[in-house]
Amino acid sequence: MRNLSFYERFSRTFREYPSISRFLVVFAVSGGGLVAYSEGNIQTGAKIDELPEAGSEKKRVVILGTGWAGTSFLKNLKNPSYDIQVISPRNYFAFTPLLPNVTVGTVEARSVVEPIRNIIKKKNLNVIYWEAECYRIDAKTKKVYCRSSEKDKEEFVVDYDYLVIAMGARVNTFNTPGVEENCHYLKEVEDAQKIRRTVIDCFEKACLPTLSDDERKRVLQFVVVGGGPTGVEFAAELHDFVSEDLVKLFDKRIATFAEENFHRDGIDLRTGEMVVKVSDKEISTKVIKTGETSTIPYGMAVWSTGIATRPVVMDFMKQIGQANRRVLATDEWLRVEGTNSIYALGDCATINQRKVMEDISAIFQKADKDSSGTLTVKEFQEALDDICDRYPQMKNLPATAQVAAQQGSYLADCFNRMEQCTKNPEGPLRFREFGRHRFRPFRYKHLGQFAPLGGEQTAAQLPGDWVSIGHSSQWLWYSVYASKQVSWHTRSLVVSDWMRCFIFGRDSSQI
Amino acid sequence: MRNLSFYERFSRTFREYPSISRFLVVFAVSGGGLVAYSEGNIQTGAKIDELPEAGSEKKRVVILGTGWAGTSFLKNLKNPSYDIQVISPRNYFAFTPLLPNVTVGTVEARSVVEPIRNIIKKKNLNVIYWEAECYRIDAKTKKVYCRSSEKDKEEFVVDYDYLVIAMGARVNTFNTPGVEENCHYLKEVEDAQKIRRTVIDCFEKACLPTLSDDERKRVLQFVVVGGGPTGVEFAAELHDFVSEDLVKLFDKRIATFAEENFHRDGIDLRTGEMVVKVSDKEISTKVIKTGETSTIPYGMAVWSTGIATRPVVMDFMKQIGQANRRVLATDEWLRVEGTNSIYALGDCATINQRKVMEDISAIFQKADKDSSGTLTVKEFQEALDDICDRYPQMKNLPATAQVAAQQGSYLADCFNRMEQCTKNPEGPLRFREFGRHRFRPFRYKHLGQFAPLGGEQTAAQLPGDWVSIGHSSQWLWYSVYASKQVSWHTRSLVVSDWMRCFIFGRDSSQI
Repeated sequence: MRNLSFYERFSRTFREYPSISRFLVVFAVSGGGLVAYSEGNIQTGAKIDELPEAGSEKKRVVILGTGWAGTSFLKNLKNPSYDIQVISPRNYFAFTPLLPNVTVGTVEARSVVEPIRNIIKKKNLNVIYWEAECYRIDAKTKKVYCRSSEKDKEEFVVDYDYLVIAMGARVNTFNTPGVEENCHYLKEVEDAQKIRRTVIDCFEKACLPTLSDDERKRVLQFVVVGGGPTGVEFAAELHDFVSEDLVKLFDKRIATFAEENFHRDGIDLRTGEMVVKVSDKEISTKVIKTGETSTIPYGMAVWSTGIATRPVVMDFMKQIGQANRRVLATDEWLRVEGTNSIYALGDCATINQRKVMEDISAIFQKADKDSSGTLTVKEFQEALDDICDRYPQMKNLPATAQVAAQQGSYLADCFNRMEQCTKNPEGPLRFREFGRHRFRPFRYKHLGQFAPLGGEQTAAQLPGDWVSIGHSSQWLWYSVYASKQVSWHTRSLVVSDWMRCFIFGRDSSQI
Repeated sequence: MRNLSFYERFSRTFREYPSISRFLVVFAVSGGGLVAYSEGNIQTGAKIDELPEAGSEKKRVVILGTGWAGTSFLKNLKNPSYDIQVISPRNYFAFTPLLPNVTVGTVEARSVVEPIRNIIKKKNLNVIYWEAECYRIDAKTKKVYCRSSEKDKEEFVVDYDYLVIAMGARVNTFNTPGVEENCHYLKEVEDAQKIRRTVIDCFEKACLPTLSDDERKRVLQFVVVGGGPTGVEFAAELHDFVSEDLVKLFDKRIATFAEENFHRDGIDLRTGEMVVKVSDKEISTKVIKTGETSTIPYGMAVWSTGIATRPVVMDFMKQIGQANRRVLATDEWLRVEGTNSIYALGDCATINQRKVMEDISAIFQKADKDSSGTLTVKEFQEALDDICDRYPQMKNLPATAQVAAQQGSYLADCFNRMEQCTKNPEGPLRFREFGRHRFRPFRYKHLGQFAPLGGEQTAAQLPGDWVSIGHSSQWLWYSVYASKQVSWHTRSLVVSDWMRCFIFGRDSSQI
């Protein structure tokens, strides 16, 4: 039987056993390992042998996370003198600015993701990916402790020479009771898919004959808590989805009302209020100035109010003497303060801005080359460039994909030129020690920010204030990202989704 | 504020509250109902008023199910003299023959579904859809009891004049212990998505450094239990997915083994065995002839062995005197035996074939026009046509999409011409009563059956035996269905998915 093709064996079997469908037939489709093992092949295929070991020539770089920061770092890393390991429970990179579009079905979930293994395959570097979650970082022994993400929860330990923490943040519920149980988030692709199903189920439910008028009113009320670009864009997308597509498919009377009202304005914006509690059917709010409380009945609620530090990062902060901080702090080179081989980027960290006044005496001494106790004009001018480089008067950076992507690419560039810059430092003068810093500090270039508001309106912040621009300019925004981060694969999928949607409208199935 | 557009209000608010992102802002996106209600509009929009009432001129047709049978019936129904209500927990029709393709990502989940509301929108009939599950059929009072499918489980009752049961069947586990907890099914779109995620997670897990060789071997072993076309096609698709795409993305040594072995034959077919138990890591089997038992370690198992009657249908069968049967029985006109206004089609029913011998004396009397006690040749010939029409010596029909679709379209045709055929019956002679039957009995036309075996091989049953045909002929099969059932929308989505897949390969993200 060994040399028969699968088809031949199948058809022969079928003829031999005409009543085959009444038996239980077992097909064992063996994946990679099986056949090799069962034939007793010598090489075991176990990857553990290949793990970079301490003392090997190549430095081991471990990247935690496959979001904007981690993926951008990985994509831009070109130096073959590292052994790279990527650890993340998510085996794909998600193009998060399109998540609001996924919620309403204008873009497919799969179109906004790119498998990490595809990215790795394209690189000529030594990269291993583990689908696992890091639950402990030990800075002293230079180890990260990991747990696989499927049900068996295998645990293992990975050694590093350099660690790049790019794990992102968790949703901040501000400890508001009921949020975790009752609200949707909009951080992951799965969140977007769940929101989509819930919106459609709300409409289906509103049609049921048993509902009271009040219940029907409640079920059709969708609440977005939070006023950041994600929340605004989602509210706008949802409004379009409801007014352009969903109402047409449902009861004619509901459609008539909805169309009349949506053409005017279907979104009710409430500012200066905060949410104090969420139950399964109601959101309780309080007006901040007056303390007045009220409740909003809802069918679906999306919580989109900001981010907080993950527990594993909090634990790590305690180890390295940052226990009193709220966010992991790095220096201007993205190196975690209190460590010398750990970097942190993206939403999980913030750059601790040095203040000129703290360093002023050191700067003065350095600039006062003749040790006269006073600075000449020339001495002052010479110091100025270095001062401007290190103290850019930059405020805290917003936690956006743009920042994370730029940090990832900056750090990769540092790693790519590590040797070269150690020999010929290109950074500003060290004020407290001799010589120069190896690298220039990270500088964020704000490329503008767009919040599509549905229909033909998009709000653009370019930079400074928000202005209204045409819908088409949205493309500009996508292309800013697109040129940096996204493969042709993903780009063409998204364009094809838009075309499908343009031709057929959005889809109302629960899928 | 009322006349400002949403965008104007948003940008104004943003300027007034520059620190807006630190507040909790509430957007309430009202769906259909809300604005209408809050403005105190007189019309309530409650759909319950529109429900067809008893005694109204139009007959109320209730369809249970949105699978092949129910959707085919709905699509082919053209007679405007009915009030139609469709009840199903699934608000879409799924093109199930493509589910194996969804499991490996060659076709998108959304591409194989069509929202029921889209189908309804295109019809000029009075159709209402409820997203709910029927949990009790009361044939005496002509009511069906329903429960909405979301978490609140609203209950309501719907009256009918004609009931069309097209609820499909449940998976038959043959009471094998452990199947429900540990095996995947391949009946619904969600099943296909889950299988996809599990296969990829198995590969990710196999890469982990902690796994023993035995564990790695187990995790990469995929088992399909059941030898029907679905199981075969899935095994073949999975084999292609693993050997053509997945192995390339994973460890090089595994890939080398896998490629070598898969090019020969990666599927191990075991017949004449039955599964006796499934644990979370092992399947226990027994050879039917010898009773010898063995165990198969597995990473993922798909149970695809056949179907059984749903509990709600079992309960209904007790009411109408079919308690001793295993499947709901109908006559040749798809009418449930023991009722006169309930029809059943698709996987949930079987046509009870009349046996000529049971009716032979009635036939003889009818044919013996001169009551001579003997049939002349002429008398016999005249009876023959009617006999052939009613006793086609047909075996039980297979539970396939083809049968369900043809039954739906047959029954719709009967409903379309109900009045006309009541006046001018076109069916065969009634042997026990006077006159003719209203309609010709349902006749199944077997259009062949194809089981794509992966790669370039497809097995075709055309009709009678299985033969190997080229892969391209698969298109023939799809087009047989496609011409009958599927909208241009779905067809073009599927073609575009195939093109994507052809260009970019299958995707390995968990999405």
